[in-house]
This record gives sequence, structure tokens and C-alpha cells, in this order.
Amino acid sequence: MSSEPRVVFIGNKPIMNYVLTIIRSFSSPDVKEVVLKARGRSITTAVDVAEVTKRQFMKQLDVKDIVIGTEEIKLEGGGTRAVSTIEITLKKEDS
Amino acid sequence: MSSEPRVVFIGNKPIMNYVLTIIRSFSSPDVKEVVLKARGRSITTAVDVAEVTKRQFMKQLDVKDIVIGTEEIKLEGGGTRAVSTIEITLKKEDS
Repeated sequence: MSSEPRVVFIGNKPIMNYVLTIIRSFSSPDVKEVVLKARGRSITTAVDVAEVTKRQFMKQLDVKDIVIGTEEIKLEGGGTRAVSTIEITLKKEDS
Repeated sequence: MSSEPRVVFIGNKPIMNYVLTIIRSFSSPDVKEVVLKARGRSITTAVDVAEVTKRQFMKQLDVKDIVIGTEEIKLEGGGTRAVSTIEITLKKEDS
């Protein structure tokens, strides 16, 4: 059993869906970190999810790292479009 | 002359407006850092602004720090609503 970080991709679902997924991941004793990944308009949702999880459900969580970036998306008609991305790493403090 | 970080509040304007503001701030020799602040739906715009400024205009910029948080907004009818916030600190590398 490793303590690999789990990854949760944030999209258009309600915030609480993602919050529940994160809480469920951390309930596994080998999971110490969960990484939220989002791009484009879902970046705001990712921040909301991190904040709600930490403030309302798991006060022992820390935001360990936040990385922003850019991805090239291939368009159907050819060409590419740049879209911003975010990765938020949540870490469970040892209690 | 101090090297206080300048603060740029990100809202609903086009991305390039903010990019130009940041480039103008960094053109002052005493400015080494600029902080982008946004909340709610503008969080995605703040990430876009940081990425476009860094990738297309000022490759010597580093994302020094990213902090997320929650603010309580007072509603007109009474009560409060929580809104997520982000602060992105851009730093100019000495060249």
C-alpha cells in the first residue's frame, strides 16, 4: 500500500459531489494527499471545493501546494487554444 | 522608494486590460512583485491573467506564491455568503 496522492478532476458537477469524493478518499488510511485538477471556468469551482472541504468538513486539511499552468487544447476545426489550469494539493495533517 | 508589492484587483474587464496594468507596474524599477487578487468567478480570470502575462509578455516572471481563502460577503437582505478568493504573487527575476 503506497500513499500515492489521489487525483480528483473538477468539472461541472455540484461542489458537494467533489467534496464527498475527497472526504471518501481521505477516509482510506493510506491516502495522505489528494490533488484537485481543473481547467478553464472550473478553476473557480476547484478553489470552492478546496475551501468548503477544509472549512466545513476537515479542518485538519492543509493546502500543501497550488500550481497554475496552461494547456493547449486541440480544436475540432484544427488549430489550438490555450486554457489555464490549476492543481491544488490537499494534505491531511497527522493527528 | 520602497519595493512594496503592487496589488491588482481582477474583475470583469478583458484579460488584456489587467495584463497591461501588470506590465506597466513592473516597468517601474522599484516594483519587484505584483499581487493579483480576485474572488468568485474572477478567480479563473486571475489565473488567465497570470499565465498570459508570464507566457506571452514577461518570460522572466515567476509565480512566487498562490494563496486561496474565503471571504464573508454581507448580503443586502441581511446575512452573509461565503465567497472563495485567490491571491497570486508575481515576482520579476533579476536579469
